[in-house]
Amino acid sequence: MAQQYPETNTNAAGESSKVSIVGGGLVGSLLALHLGQKGYQVHLHEYRDDIRTTELIGGRSINLALSARGRKALAEVGLEEVVLEHGIPMRGRMLHDLNGNRRIVPYDKTKNQCIYSVGRKHLNEILLNAAERYPNIHLKFNQKLVDMNIEDNQMTFINPQTKETNDETTDLIIGCDGAFSAVRRHMITRTGFDFSQTYIEHGYLELCIPPTETGDFAMPHNYLHIWPRGKFMMIALPNQDKSWTVTLFMPFENFDMLKNAKDLLEFFGKYFSDAVNLIGTERLIKDFFKIKPQSLVMIKCRPYHISDKVLLMGDAAHAMVPFYGQGMNAGFEDCSILSDILERARSRDISEAIREFSSKRWRDAFAICDLAMYNYVEMRDLVNRRSFLWRKSLDDFLFWLMPNTWVPLYNTVSFSHMPYSKCIVNREWQNKILSRSVMIAGSAAMAAAAGIITKFMWYN
Amino acid sequence: MAQQYPETNTNAAGESSKVSIVGGGLVGSLLALHLGQKGYQVHLHEYRDDIRTTELIGGRSINLALSARGRKALAEVGLEEVVLEHGIPMRGRMLHDLNGNRRIVPYDKTKNQCIYSVGRKHLNEILLNAAERYPNIHLKFNQKLVDMNIEDNQMTFINPQTKETNDETTDLIIGCDGAFSAVRRHMITRTGFDFSQTYIEHGYLELCIPPTETGDFAMPHNYLHIWPRGKFMMIALPNQDKSWTVTLFMPFENFDMLKNAKDLLEFFGKYFSDAVNLIGTERLIKDFFKIKPQSLVMIKCRPYHISDKVLLMGDAAHAMVPFYGQGMNAGFEDCSILSDILERARSRDISEAIREFSSKRWRDAFAICDLAMYNYVEMRDLVNRRSFLWRKSLDDFLFWLMPNTWVPLYNTVSFSHMPYSKCIVNREWQNKILSRSVMIAGSAAMAAAAGIITKFMWYN
Repeated sequence: MAQQYPETNTNAAGESSKVSIVGGGLVGSLLALHLGQKGYQVHLHEYRDDIRTTELIGGRSINLALSARGRKALAEVGLEEVVLEHGIPMRGRMLHDLNGNRRIVPYDKTKNQCIYSVGRKHLNEILLNAAERYPNIHLKFNQKLVDMNIEDNQMTFINPQTKETNDETTDLIIGCDGAFSAVRRHMITRTGFDFSQTYIEHGYLELCIPPTETGDFAMPHNYLHIWPRGKFMMIALPNQDKSWTVTLFMPFENFDMLKNAKDLLEFFGKYFSDAVNLIGTERLIKDFFKIKPQSLVMIKCRPYHISDKVLLMGDAAHAMVPFYGQGMNAGFEDCSILSDILERARSRDISEAIREFSSKRWRDAFAICDLAMYNYVEMRDLVNRRSFLWRKSLDDFLFWLMPNTWVPLYNTVSFSHMPYSKCIVNREWQNKILSRSVMIAGSAAMAAAAGIITKFMWYN
Repeated sequence: MAQQYPETNTNAAGESSKVSIVGGGLVGSLLALHLGQKGYQVHLHEYRDDIRTTELIGGRSINLALSARGRKALAEVGLEEVVLEHGIPMRGRMLHDLNGNRRIVPYDKTKNQCIYSVGRKHLNEILLNAAERYPNIHLKFNQKLVDMNIEDNQMTFINPQTKETNDETTDLIIGCDGAFSAVRRHMITRTGFDFSQTYIEHGYLELCIPPTETGDFAMPHNYLHIWPRGKFMMIALPNQDKSWTVTLFMPFENFDMLKNAKDLLEFFGKYFSDAVNLIGTERLIKDFFKIKPQSLVMIKCRPYHISDKVLLMGDAAHAMVPFYGQGMNAGFEDCSILSDILERARSRDISEAIREFSSKRWRDAFAICDLAMYNYVEMRDLVNRRSFLWRKSLDDFLFWLMPNTWVPLYNTVSFSHMPYSKCIVNREWQNKILSRSVMIAGSAAMAAAAGIITKFMWYN
């Protein structure tokens, strides 16, 4: 792990040298590193307590799937290896049917690429620990943004514990404060700020499969396990401690029907019988009724900036449903892209860079938000259908035949750095080729048939 | 004009009798009448001064197109006739080409139905005057909503002039406070509240064509005049005082190019030469540079309610771009629909009624928002194309042939009470019929051709 201290603590441009990041989660702390390594004075404000000194926060996903885009952004700050060390490779989906039979659908037969299950807390800790070593990165916890004066570059924070407030003047505010961003709330009344929040009618609830008595994983651990059930589904990602984080995604109305332990066990017995044994009935009942199912929201907005004063990144700019495993990866890629723009700009003028970032990034963010929404249907339903598996086999074959030309959608999204919007265009191009081939084949068949009929008519 | 005083000042249900409407614009004041006539205690809070005692407010459209839906809602409170008395019928579009030649495209050749140009201020005054006569409708001006506690049915208002604040407790809050609704701002952080605001890249600017020297209209006044120019357009609606309100819709970047009087006159000379003479160059220059072009936003959200405590109506629920002339009409129809639901509910339990309204109305609101967006392309561009005029003639002919079966889209939207979403379905059905007819005709032609070829081959 190569870590370089910045040569200077101030930026060459001088004026934009102080950057205040709101939100010290995954994207905020990675961004702090990217900017810190470029010599900016970075102030990172997190409204919670330091995650390194606290218990796990309930109601947020515990582990995440790290793929190519996230890895690239980590590599750029010298942290890819240390993160992967603690990640668990998942080489494909393992599908569980109603009878508990399992089937493997590999992500990438050709190049054997995989995604990694990483713990949110652990990853955040690695990032904060790394950030802390830079003298020009200042970590500030228990700082809740309560007011913002964009014109005057002013922010007011309150410490939720001590109720102390403090004002901060800065050159640039970057909101990395998640789907319900406080920074964004100050942008929404601006003329010309497009914004949408869309809730889906499905909620999620996290359960746990503990390690076996012998201290091992209870299922083959190099897979993302899925129990696709059409209208709902359950998935499981492996944890470092050999447990599994299991997530049930289901319409809220179906959650509402499970009122007590009897309902729950009947439901699980019918749809996830093999999982019940692994979770254990007692733990299942306890965890299921501990908290209410959480909602899932998609956020799209644009532009991400207000002049050279405010910028949104990560979930604050583009929150998506979790079904492509790209939420964190897209947020990390934001850091890569901004970083790259800054590198290319000789003057390192951050105000120009944020305009460029803002004008080019939204299209790809919209694309991955839409893909994530679509992937829920694929994961919970299509994955069980013959037409899907046939297409998947065809894609795999063509990928094997032409590994640089025919890259399937999942692979461009998860194992390449192709802009998300181009991934969609690429898929549409593939669809066009295939439907043309079918048409040509069909026409040939019809022509042949017509020939036969003509001959038949001729001779009779 | 029939006006009935309510028999009682309190509602039979008792509990929900006090309704606080936020926003005393067109929809708010019409709603006050609808609810007042049903015996509810209505408190209408308007943040501006009483419009009847003030000058015209700049930056808002001066006149509006009233059509069937709006007329129905006005008729229900006995105000249709008095409003139409002051309205100017517009029987079709009058298109102005680059050379000033004019062509009429009637709205409804078959039934001769028309839309009416009405003044916003005048209409608002009629509604407020009517509302004021009910002892159970309480008008309160200079009341700006600054806080809302939804759980406790509490609102806080401030008088922007005196800075006095006052709290109000109510049974139901109805936000009729427009596209930038303060009520809605309190709903947006709620889980499950879908919301989008979308700005278009075009702005608008209002100009004026004064009456002629002889005190007459400067153009044939029973038409909505359009100067369609592809990427931009200008329209004009007649006013009671024989002037015209002229609105230029154009991409902001094109507005930005007109920096001074010379640019402006060159531009108008090229694209709207016949209008320059009618506006007058001096007035044109003065009005054009008086205020900046205004933005146009589309707002969609759902659900419109929070339990039985808050409801959104009108632009607060569904703001649209103005190109279908349906913004006010849709808002007025909201009043009709809620009223109708209340009528049908014997108990007149307003909490059930708002749930029903909320669950059925959003689909139609989304539909008209989309139609309005589409109609901009039609008005500024398609209207000039042969394919459009051909389809319009065909629609007119079929409408004339089957006036109850084949009602063109514009006519279902403007001259019927068909739910907006059904108007779209109806149009899609018509498109299907037409494309099938074309296919059948095409197939017949091909079959005939094939027959000729076969014969040709046979005999040669």
